[in-house]
Amino acid sequence: MGETVRILIIGAAGMIGRKLAERLAREGSLGGAEITSMVLADLSPPPIPPVARCGIQSTQGDLAEPGAAADLVQGRPDVIVDLAAVVSGEAERDFEKGYRVNLDGTRELLEAVRLMSRGYRPRLVFSSSVAVFGPPLPDVIGDDQATTPATSYGTQKAIAELLLADYARRGIVDAVGIRLPTICVRPGTANLAASGFFSNIIREPLNGREAVLPVGEDVRHWFASPRAAVEFLIHAAALDSEAIGPPRALTMPGLSATVGMEIDALRRAAGDTAVSLIRREPDEAIARIVNGWPRAFDARRALELGFRAERDFDEIVQVYIDDELSATTQG
Amino acid sequence: MGETVRILIIGAAGMIGRKLAERLAREGSLGGAEITSMVLADLSPPPIPPVARCGIQSTQGDLAEPGAAADLVQGRPDVIVDLAAVVSGEAERDFEKGYRVNLDGTRELLEAVRLMSRGYRPRLVFSSSVAVFGPPLPDVIGDDQATTPATSYGTQKAIAELLLADYARRGIVDAVGIRLPTICVRPGTANLAASGFFSNIIREPLNGREAVLPVGEDVRHWFASPRAAVEFLIHAAALDSEAIGPPRALTMPGLSATVGMEIDALRRAAGDTAVSLIRREPDEAIARIVNGWPRAFDARRALELGFRAERDFDEIVQVYIDDELSATTQG
Repeated sequence: MGETVRILIIGAAGMIGRKLAERLAREGSLGGAEITSMVLADLSPPPIPPVARCGIQSTQGDLAEPGAAADLVQGRPDVIVDLAAVVSGEAERDFEKGYRVNLDGTRELLEAVRLMSRGYRPRLVFSSSVAVFGPPLPDVIGDDQATTPATSYGTQKAIAELLLADYARRGIVDAVGIRLPTICVRPGTANLAASGFFSNIIREPLNGREAVLPVGEDVRHWFASPRAAVEFLIHAAALDSEAIGPPRALTMPGLSATVGMEIDALRRAAGDTAVSLIRREPDEAIARIVNGWPRAFDARRALELGFRAERDFDEIVQVYIDDELSATTQG
Repeated sequence: MGETVRILIIGAAGMIGRKLAERLAREGSLGGAEITSMVLADLSPPPIPPVARCGIQSTQGDLAEPGAAADLVQGRPDVIVDLAAVVSGEAERDFEKGYRVNLDGTRELLEAVRLMSRGYRPRLVFSSSVAVFGPPLPDVIGDDQATTPATSYGTQKAIAELLLADYARRGIVDAVGIRLPTICVRPGTANLAASGFFSNIIREPLNGREAVLPVGEDVRHWFASPRAAVEFLIHAAALDSEAIGPPRALTMPGLSATVGMEIDALRRAAGDTAVSLIRREPDEAIARIVNGWPRAFDARRALELGFRAERDFDEIVQVYIDDELSATTQG
């Protein structure tokens, strides 16, 4: 990385995108390089971070629309972080929208970079997902696991990873795809996604509200906090190109934890009263969906490259308390 | 499969496509069902097989052109065999053409099927390739090997496999992707593809001509004859849907053989005079390329599903002699 860096964040209005933009704007630097400009793009104009040590532009655009990606890369950003995505449930319900945003949008971005003049080869950090893996899965999934997605969303992410690798191999883009764990604790309001309860049972009780737990306490899954996710993106953006080498898609480290471990951490942080707000309402449909999800990874390559996640659920709960329940950190 | 079957072959002007069309036209049936019509499509109109027991239409079209795929599936073929592809070397040289034909073309075909009226769910046999695998590779590659292609061609085939799986999971198409071994002995004239010598050193001497061998005799690779490839396609077209289940991409069986084994088989078939026509001209560049290629597969799933290839190189040589050097079999 040079002494200065221009950053483009696509999908900057989402939860992770906003946190990433706020963090970079506040610090004013990335991997030792001064951030001279930052462009935040999304379907609706992303908010400008309240504290900023660099010029920030907020712009609205749809990556899948002809010309939109070319407009975004026209300023030759040194680092592009692509977080734009239709999430899993929506990509499953709306076939065309999922392929348009998650596949065509990514391809338009890669093509826009390819069609720029010579000598332009930005770092592209692409948010992939563990949804590229589908059943049957081993208890602990290694870096060599084949991508056999069980959803359209996972398919679109796996295809994007293949494109990234080919464009990187040809020297068009210096790409890193990072497969994010399930983000927990998600701030905001309870949502109805199948994975929502993992966050709901921590966030709602910590805010004095009831939360529904549709599965048993032995259900195990793979987590990282929003703060860890932002760290992954920043670490990936500043990573030494030589170190990455093929493959270009990395499974991020995370914490393998059961629902029971979540509840124990909640009890340690907020006592039995908080835990008593968790209402058990077994839901066979959700249990079946969650049963097909990964439980743990051996994310060796990412760990070797210096990526770090939380080591126990107490840390994850504490991140939520620090970042979301303390009035001073919210813009 | 019903009592009658309509077949569409896309890429029917190529070497395998012509052999497949000739074979099906001659037999007039597929998996016990009578072939009532066959449409042969390619960039240039494919030849009509000389012996035909069913109506055959030859048509010209480019799958990647808007509307072309829709035109082809309008007749609601029960079985679609998609052999259309830009080959490895060309896809590497011409980035845009490779993606247009190998990725966009396949996607247009899948989309055309999706957009047909309800109740249409054809069997789609898609020719994939072992090029979906790239180094580092184990000596024997299992069915669970991750797809990490080392070329744009391999990338495009791996993406097509992911699309096939997702469209199949959603019930849009009854897809089978078959990963063909290197086809040997290719008929015709010596070609300059990096893999050409595997065929050249058999075909040219059998025709009294010299052939160049650019690598050592210990080089090992993965082969099937053109006749076996046609058998794979026919077997895949008639396969019971229930038996396939995910994953939808199958590594075909083949023969793992060294160049030395090829030469021994040539000697047994045509004697030392033929073998003496092989001229050794070591080529470091070709040796390096070939070194990254797969040497052997454990194609268990395909074998369980009844796919069969040759068991020694003598069989492969004999297929060439029977099918290409005997005047009666050529149209």
